[in-house]
This record gives sequence, structure tokens and C-alpha cells, in this order.
Amino acid sequence: MNFEEILREIEAEIKPHVGEGAVADYIPALAEADINSFAMSVITLDGKRYDVGDCATPFSIQSISKIFGLTLALGFEGADLWERVGREPSGTAFNSIVQLERENGIPRNPFINAGALVVTDAIISHCKGNDTLPLILDLVRRASGGAAVGVDQRVAASEKEWGDRNRSLAYFMKSFDVLENDPENVLDAYFNQCAIEMTTPALARAGLFLANDGVDPITHEEITTHARVNRINALMLTCGHYDMSGDFAFRVGLPGKSGVGGGILAIVPGACSVAVWSPGLNTYGSSHAGTLALEAFSEKTQLNLF
Amino acid sequence: MNFEEILREIEAEIKPHVGEGAVADYIPALAEADINSFAMSVITLDGKRYDVGDCATPFSIQSISKIFGLTLALGFEGADLWERVGREPSGTAFNSIVQLERENGIPRNPFINAGALVVTDAIISHCKGNDTLPLILDLVRRASGGAAVGVDQRVAASEKEWGDRNRSLAYFMKSFDVLENDPENVLDAYFNQCAIEMTTPALARAGLFLANDGVDPITHEEITTHARVNRINALMLTCGHYDMSGDFAFRVGLPGKSGVGGGILAIVPGACSVAVWSPGLNTYGSSHAGTLALEAFSEKTQLNLF
Amino acid sequence: MNFEEILREIEAEIKPHVGEGAVADYIPALAEADINSFAMSVITLDGKRYDVGDCATPFSIQSISKIFGLTLALGFEGADLWERVGREPSGTAFNSIVQLERENGIPRNPFINAGALVVTDAIISHCKGNDTLPLILDLVRRASGGAAVGVDQRVAASEKEWGDRNRSLAYFMKSFDVLENDPENVLDAYFNQCAIEMTTPALARAGLFLANDGVDPITHEEITTHARVNRINALMLTCGHYDMSGDFAFRVGLPGKSGVGGGILAIVPGACSVAVWSPGLNTYGSSHAGTLALEAFSEKTQLNLF
Amino acid sequence: MNFEEILREIEAEIKPHVGEGAVADYIPALAEADINSFAMSVITLDGKRYDVGDCATPFSIQSISKIFGLTLALGFEGADLWERVGREPSGTAFNSIVQLERENGIPRNPFINAGALVVTDAIISHCKGNDTLPLILDLVRRASGGAAVGVDQRVAASEKEWGDRNRSLAYFMKSFDVLENDPENVLDAYFNQCAIEMTTPALARAGLFLANDGVDPITHEEITTHARVNRINALMLTCGHYDMSGDFAFRVGLPGKSGVGGGILAIVPGACSVAVWSPGLNTYGSSHAGTLALEAFSEKTQLNLF
Repeated sequence: MNFEEILREIEAEIKPHVGEGAVADYIPALAEADINSFAMSVITLDGKRYDVGDCATPFSIQSISKIFGLTLALGFEGADLWERVGREPSGTAFNSIVQLERENGIPRNPFINAGALVVTDAIISHCKGNDTLPLILDLVRRASGGAAVGVDQRVAASEKEWGDRNRSLAYFMKSFDVLENDPENVLDAYFNQCAIEMTTPALARAGLFLANDGVDPITHEEITTHARVNRINALMLTCGHYDMSGDFAFRVGLPGKSGVGGGILAIVPGACSVAVWSPGLNTYGSSHAGTLALEAFSEKTQLNLF
Repeated sequence: MNFEEILREIEAEIKPHVGEGAVADYIPALAEADINSFAMSVITLDGKRYDVGDCATPFSIQSISKIFGLTLALGFEGADLWERVGREPSGTAFNSIVQLERENGIPRNPFINAGALVVTDAIISHCKGNDTLPLILDLVRRASGGAAVGVDQRVAASEKEWGDRNRSLAYFMKSFDVLENDPENVLDAYFNQCAIEMTTPALARAGLFLANDGVDPITHEEITTHARVNRINALMLTCGHYDMSGDFAFRVGLPGKSGVGGGILAIVPGACSVAVWSPGLNTYGSSHAGTLALEAFSEKTQLNLF
Repeated sequence: MNFEEILREIEAEIKPHVGEGAVADYIPALAEADINSFAMSVITLDGKRYDVGDCATPFSIQSISKIFGLTLALGFEGADLWERVGREPSGTAFNSIVQLERENGIPRNPFINAGALVVTDAIISHCKGNDTLPLILDLVRRASGGAAVGVDQRVAASEKEWGDRNRSLAYFMKSFDVLENDPENVLDAYFNQCAIEMTTPALARAGLFLANDGVDPITHEEITTHARVNRINALMLTCGHYDMSGDFAFRVGLPGKSGVGGGILAIVPGACSVAVWSPGLNTYGSSHAGTLALEAFSEKTQLNLF
Repeated sequence: MNFEEILREIEAEIKPHVGEGAVADYIPALAEADINSFAMSVITLDGKRYDVGDCATPFSIQSISKIFGLTLALGFEGADLWERVGREPSGTAFNSIVQLERENGIPRNPFINAGALVVTDAIISHCKGNDTLPLILDLVRRASGGAAVGVDQRVAASEKEWGDRNRSLAYFMKSFDVLENDPENVLDAYFNQCAIEMTTPALARAGLFLANDGVDPITHEEITTHARVNRINALMLTCGHYDMSGDFAFRVGLPGKSGVGGGILAIVPGACSVAVWSPGLNTYGSSHAGTLALEAFSEKTQLNLF
């Protein structure tokens, strides 16, 4: 497969759509992102990397960090985690509280905000009072083969300041005893995790273990087990894009996870990891140009699970 | 892969769970099914077939027929169909009407009952007054390489007699002009389609085109296009099991479609088609032993998309 | 109280608002109503009557007929009726099906459409195969002291033709065994009842028993019991205007029942009965000018329960 | 009317039901209430008072305090308050968040918890940094003619400790900018207000202005305007008992407001104010014996609005 040429084609085709949609503006720090940015990186199991666009610019990975949080929490709790968070698509928006009320405070899946808060809560419970951020950062760095991975403190502070909807979700679950720790601590850890920033090459590299049954194909380190990778990928496919997960599966046919920073990570099991970034969002909160780029990638490469 | 041995192992492991759950009893004709039945068939792209259990007994395929209906309707309408039915998991039960009210009568996906009624309506619109059943039967027979495919008229009559919930869904959509035809005609066609009965070998055979990009690998007939197969399989993965679709993807990792008759069809793209049948249902309306059998199949063969 | 002068004042004040809102257009027969019509009639316990406006024009009383249906059904079934229909405000629109799904097909109250269908079903069950319309008409005629009360067959036929939403509600309840009779028969009886037409003087007269503890103060006939009148009036106050019942209680402070034909009947227990009609509806489906007229009536007369 | 005898009859009839239901146990301080307590007091416009039962025992008035909060906030904001809180029954439980999500964070009415938090927020906004509790206490004391009115600090502290559900509601509304002040301040003020404790004679006395168009009939002080009293009473009738408001109107026919401490205040406009207390709650969170006592009171006295 000539990924170099394919990425160049995609870049050319997608260009007219870069700038469409709207940058996330619920916090000032995200609203400053340049809507005309676009980057895409592919890394194959043998370590070859292909990049186009603004691939040197770090961006806020936001909800993509939920993949790494889930990987960490499954390592700590194993299947016990599923007593507090479901594995079903929600049929509602990322920050909906309706489903929580109907289902006794148990979030539908670990990729909606409420579910990610439960995952963060599980990590805190296993940290015995230590900060959770170093653990997540360590995982992301190991998974990416030592890439530079920072945290934008302005974004974290801004999330905290404007985090009343997430705060509401956390206290709601606390009232059902679904959270074990102080909701404010859970929120702080969650906001920090969301503020991780990476470039598309680093992000694609960090997702490579998901394309290789849990083992980093380059360092040969086992990041997680084969069985867990199957499940994380399955969840990305059914729940990775909130209320457009079905549409993403329909159009792209690959497990993926989007973030409101405009990034998307997509996995081709047994083949490669793909990261794309463009901050203009569609109405569901996923990158507009990024989704189109992945749809084109799936069509051109025929790397579609189905 | 030694499918023969694997199926024998699965049959032995699953045996203690056959008889668990409850047979569908909303219509008398289904309530008579023998809860102790179990059958499983695998057919590979090269036409080799492996069977265990009661594989000579025909059963009511019920909602599995929605796959064939969708294949037919996409052939008639192409992408226009998606203006009247969505592609997202519903987050609710198979016969829920709540989502319809919230979304102006547009069903979430073609595999919940309301969505299948829209698909049936589309087929009727293209039949110019002729009966739709022969068309569906013809498709199923061609896809299965000429297998005997019957319709249990008692089941169809019973569905019609006890079909008030589906009738309610149909009139609800009619009130939003989502259906083009007389709801009673749509319901009749739908009830007939649900009453198709097949054995597991015939069903597995009929699904083979979904494992081979739309072309029957034995007769080389193109049943539908490659692109449509990708999409049908994606929908089966995200929406094929109502409100346990996420769980099925998590545990089995394959596109599948269940029916309240106790059958499940699962597809391994590029490899094989699998049909399983056991009438004891779990609380979500899918075969209990059948789901366990497919989970074991996925584990033993490592044929998991993720 | 000088009702004559008060009504003249109200007519003058309301005039600029007559014509605002929109005539019900879900069926052709209602869409033809003249939006510039306005009529108001008050009749006191001693039989004195005061009218302004188009009080000789009969209009379709629509949902106001639910009061008479409920009176009749309570006479047949007594408190047993409440096992199949609730007594709580719904918090949703008049034709919502969401609540039915959450509460096993039991409608929240007898004044939303689903509840009125249950009431109609109860009347049919007591009619032993005879038509229900003569019974309702007989009650309305007796209550109104022999007024001319007709049924607009075009409206009834039109309701039936465009009645898919109500049909959906009926079949939904039937699937929960909440209805005893064939839904089509229940719908026919319901559509006939909704098509009753009266003038405001006749309607005000027909409501007089509700202002006098169940006894017609002029003929001295007991239409229903004192206890039932208390309850019918209570239901009108809490549920008589769908999802603006609270607002009507807040602004007018009287039990009332509106219909999409633009009529409203309001009761002042111990004093008088008031009917108003103007076909322009607000967004909740109640007469816009009619609501304003009753608010002015309540302010000017201080006849407010609270 | 011989209230003395009527109350004695009611006490005798209700006795077998005192102790039924369950004491509120969401906070320890309320769980200690003696379920066998019962008290009832009536005070007429001419100042005559009638008591039975444990009328010297103060109890936590809880949500009944919402009446006084609303009276105060209407004094500060007038009709502007209704831009941030509705006037409709909710059709859901007292602490439901579903409706808030559907309606952009605007609570349905001032008597569900979310609505009372908005009312409290309005009071805080007008207090310019001063504590709101003295204002509420001052109003209650004035309305009750100088009765001893305390605040149980253990209850307030306990509410705060176990207040995560209310905290969730507050942050949810804050995320929609429906609250003007820091949610923690709003919650503190709300929890303090709920912890007010009074006896039934003091509570009945404090409600007398609602039976007399806003003016205390004994001190002749205007507590609020006539128009506002009409509206507060209307809201009590349609929304005063959460999701059994319709049933209370149906059975009792009087404006009332219940609290989880087991108290209920009911108003007979133009006649008297009635307070009842018994801590055993029904499934809707209202006093079981208290509701029965008011139903008997309405029947025996025929003091029913309808």
C-alpha cells in the first residue's frame, strides 16, 4: 500500500473542507485553535510513518485520552470495572444526564463523559493518594515510544472553571454511590487528562499497541492484554463518537475515538494506527475534516473491518 | 482452522446452558419451540460446511430477516433510504417508541422494529402493487444457493393477531409521513418476512455473501455491492442486537443479527458465515446459549474483528 | 356582579388579539374556521345568561367533550376507571406517547388523548354493542337543558382519515391490554365525540352542573354526584390544558378545559359557568384570545379559586 | 363549623394509619423522627385555633419552606422570576434531572428541588452578600405572628453532607447560566431553609396570609399581594406534591405543600389554614397519615375548592 501517495491525495481532496464546522468554544483555551489546521499521520506495525499537514503542531487530545484512561483502569480493576460502567452505545449526546437517571447513575459506556469520570475514579482508587496524571502520562509516553507528551495547564484550568456540566454528572453519580472518591478530585484528574496535548505522529504512535493485540510492535512491550485490546477496539467502534458512532462505523468501518480538540485516532487491527487533526467540529462534536479524511482513507485503502 | 473440532468443543461447553433463558411467548406459535434445541453451522468461503446439533430443524428467523430486507431495499433505493431511517444505535429496546417521538418519527436504525417497517415500506413502494414476500424469498434462496426456505403461515398469522405494538409503531410513523404505504400493508409484509423459517446450515449459507464483499463465493453471483456489504456489516455490529449490541461487539467482536426465534447470524468478513440457534432468550431478546456459543467461537478461533 | 358590562369590557380589550395564533390545520374541516371569530357566554346558577360576540355560531368542541365522556364513564364504572387511567398532569403534550411507554400503557389522566381513549373504551364496554354517540349526546343535551347539539360528520370523517397519531396511541395501549375493545371501534367513538358542535351559550349551559355540585340548578336534575364533580373540576384544573395547565391555573385560577376547535369551558363552583370561543390557537393548542378573555374575566370578577 | 369535633374525629379515624409508610432516611437527622407522631392544627381567619395530637413537637418543615422562599423571591423579583423557573407540573419526581436537560436547565416549577434552588438563587442575588436565612426566618416569624421558629443545624449539616443529588441539579443549572450565584452558596442557603422547624400550630398560623389574600387577618400586616397569593395557591394546587399533585387535588381539593419531614400545609382561601404532621411517608415522599387526614378534613368540612 502506498500510504505516502494516499495521504497526499487525501490532503488535496480534504483541503476545501478544512475550515468548515466550528471550533469548540466552551472554553477559551480551545476556542483559539486555528480552524484551518489539518494534519494526518499513519504508522504501520513495522514502524514506518507517513505524515501530511500540520503534523508538528501539538493539539489538545481531549476525549481521545479516554482510551488511555480505560487501558490503565482495566489494568487495575479488570472486569470489575464493568460493574460501574456499561458497554452500550448511549443513543444520546456526550454529556447527557438523562440516561444516568434512568439507570441508577451507571453510565452507558466509558467514552461518554460520565463513563470516563467513573474510569478516572477507578484510577484514583488505585493511586493511594498519589496524583493520577503521572500514571496516564507514563502510559501515553510508553505507548508512543517515548514521544514528548505535555499537558496544557491553561486548558486544564479552563476546563475546571467551565466544568459545571461535568461537575453535575459527577455529583449525580456520587449520589448513587457510583463514584468512590470525592467528585472534585475525580473532576480535577479528568480535566488534567483531557488537557494532554500531542502531535498527530505522536498520537498515531501511541495507538499502535491497539493495532497489534496489546503489544507495542516496535519496543515489544506489552501495554495491555490481547483480550483487552479486542474490547477497547470494540468499544471505540460502537461508542467512540457519541451519538454519531453508528455513522462513523457505517462510513469509515474502523474503531476510532474523537475529541473536541479536533483529533481522531483510528485503528486498523493488524495493520496500522492513524491520527488526524483539524479543529473544525461537526454538530456531534467530532472533527469535520478529520472524519472526511478517515472516510477517504478507508475507501482508498479498503482497510475497512467489514 | 479445525472448525469441526471447534464446533464439537463448543457444543459440549454450551450444553449446560441450553435450556436457560425463556422462549419467546408473545405469540403462541413461537412459544411452542423446544427450549432444549441447539444447532450451529459454519460455512467458509470455499464452501466447506461444519454443523453440530439440531441442524436439520427449521426455525423462525424473525428479525434476522431484517438483513435480507435491508439488502433488498438498498438495491431499490440506494442511499435515499437513509433519509427515512438512521444508522445509530438506539440505546433503547427493540420496540421502543420513545425515540420516535423525540426524532419526528424517523427510526434510529433499520434493525429496530420501527426501522425494519420503514425498510419494508420502501420495498413495497418498489413493488408496484405486487406482493413483497416472493422478492424476499427469492433473495434468500439465491443467497443460500437454492436452499429450501419456507414461511410458517401460523407464525405470520399469529404475529398479525398479536401485533398491536408494531401496529402502534407503524401508525406513529405514518402520522409523521415517514411511511409511504398503508400501515396495514406494511405490517402484513413485515409479519410475513419475520415468519421465514430456515435451518442453521441454510442460514449460514445465506449469509455467505456478507463475508465475501457481496459476491456469493460459490455461485459467483453478486448479491449486493462491496460498499453495501461494508455498511450492512457495520450496522449489524453497532445495532444488530438492540440494546445489547455493544455487549455483543465487546464479547464476540463480529457483526451479528439476532431474532426472537433464537437464531443468530454472525459474519467473519473474508472468512466464513456462522449461524446458531437455541430458543432460550436472555432479557434482551437474543438467544442465551447462541450468544455464549458465538463468544466461545470468537475466543477459540481468534476470529474477532478487533 | 354586572356580568353584562364585564363581558363588554372583555370583548373590547380582547379584540386586538382575536386573529392571533393559528387555526388548527391537522384536519381540513377545522382549518376552515374563521380565525376572526370570538364569542363568550356566562350563565349563572339562577339561569341568567350573558353573551358577547359570535355566540350564535356553533363550533367543534373537540377535547371539551372529554368532560362529558368522563362524566358518563364515571357513572358506569365509578372508581374502577382509575385502575386504567391516572390523575396526574403529564408534563408532556396532548398526544405524547413517551409517558405511555414508561408507565405500561396507563395514560396519565383522562384529558390527554390516550386517557380519553380509555374513557371512551369504558363507555363502549358498558354499551353492550350499541353506539356510544347517542349516550354522549343525550348527556350533553340533558346537561344543557335541551340545547341543540349536533355532530359535524365532516369533522368526524376527517379526524378518522387523519387520525394516525391517535391510532398509534390506541394500538399501543391495546398491546398493554389497557383497552378492552377493538381499537378501531374506540377510535370511531372518540372521533364522533370530538366532532360535537355547540355554540358558547349552549356549552356554558351544559357546564352548569359542574358549578352546582352535580345538579342542574334550573331543571334540578342530578347529572352526576357531588363527589364526582369535585374530582372532575380538580382534574380540569390540574390537567385541563395539557402542558399549559399550570399556567392556566396560575393566570386564571379556575377549572377549565380547552379544545383545538378554539373553545374553552371554565367553571366557577357555586357561581357560574363560562364558555369562550376563538379559533386562533397558541403553541399549546388552546385558544389564544379565549385564554386572554378568561384571564381578564378572572381579574375583573375576582372569581378565582385561590 | 365545629372544627374541634371534626379534628377529634379525624384523629380517631387516622390513628390506625399513623406509623404506616416510612420515615425519610436519606439523612440521619430525619431518620430519627418518631413514625408514631401525629399532629393537626387548624386556624381560622378570626384567629381561632384547634389542635390535636403532638402539636407541641417541632418538626423539620423541609420543602414546605419553599412556599416562604417563593413569597420572598416574588417580593424581590416580581414576574421576572418566571423567566428562570416555570409554572407547570413536572410529571416527574421531586429530584428529577431529566426535565432540566430537555428544557435547557429551566426547572418546571418552584416546588421541585431544582426550582426551589432557582428561587433561593434569586433571594441571594437580592441580599448583596448578606446571609439569606435571617430574611426567610423573619418572613416566617412575621407570618406566624411571632411564633418561635428555629433551624435544626444538625439537619442543615446533614443535608449538606448528603446533598449530592441537589448539588448535581445546581451545577447542571449553573452550566446553563440559570443560576446567578455560586452553586455552593445556593445549596447552603437552600439546606438551611429546609432545616427550619416548627410545630403544627405555628405552621398553620404562618400560612394564614395565604387564606386571606396576602394580609395577616390578625395583625393586618400585608405579607404579600392578593395577586401573588392567588398564584402561590394555584402553584401549590398544581405542583405542591411532586408527582402526586394531581391525586392530592383530586382527593383533597385544596392547595397544599408537603415536606419529607412529614408535614403538610393546606390552605382554604377565605376560611382557614391547616397544618398536619406525621413522619411516615408514602412512595411519593408525602406524609401518608397526613394526606389521609386532609382528605378526611375535606370530606367532613366540604371545604373543597371544587
